[in-house]
Amino acid sequence: MKVNEVSWSDLEQEVAQTAFQKAYEREVNALINEVRDNANKVCKLEDIWSLHNYLSARRHEIDGKYDYNYSVLVFVFATLVKQGWLHLDELNGLDKEKIAKIGSLSRM
Amino acid sequence: MKVNEVSWSDLEQEVAQTAFQKAYEREVNALINEVRDNANKVCKLEDIWSLHNYLSARRHEIDGKYDYNYSVLVFVFATLVKQGWLHLDELNGLDKEKIAKIGSLSRM
Repeated sequence: MKVNEVSWSDLEQEVAQTAFQKAYEREVNALINEVRDNANKVCKLEDIWSLHNYLSARRHEIDGKYDYNYSVLVFVFATLVKQGWLHLDELNGLDKEKIAKIGSLSRM
Repeated sequence: MKVNEVSWSDLEQEVAQTAFQKAYEREVNALINEVRDNANKVCKLEDIWSLHNYLSARRHEIDGKYDYNYSVLVFVFATLVKQGWLHLDELNGLDKEKIAKIGSLSRM
């Protein structure tokens, strides 16, 4: 069975949803704080356009990354662990093979 | 002679550059304050994307508007007067016909 064809039990879906939401909230809160800090440092037009460029990039990245779809969720979690938005132990409750896969992908 | 073919004397060019710069600084300062205010009110991801949308629109507008080109400067000034970034009397020193044209266009 390929990793993107694995099934997710009810318990796993619950663990996955909670972990996904937690990572999302962490990243969003960090972005909010970052935007406030950057905005307070803005003192010329170029700074505003830099902030705009930064937001364009983050929007593209966040929109693409938070894809709650079971066929790609192992990869999504691996990215979130790699980027520090999620701890591997917050995925406890998932099938061991999935956790091992996520851990291994997150170190790539 | 069409309005976009008029010539600008040295004195007029000086008046125009000063007025253009003044309007630009006013609009940029207002935008900086607005961005700081908006950023401080941001409390969820949608607020950040609203700020991003707003900056995209302002960037497009400002990049297009501040075109220091004598062939279109009468129209640029008319827009700046209309939008309140420039007072008509800050164009004193320009040829009367130009000022009248700018005033009339700004009321359209």
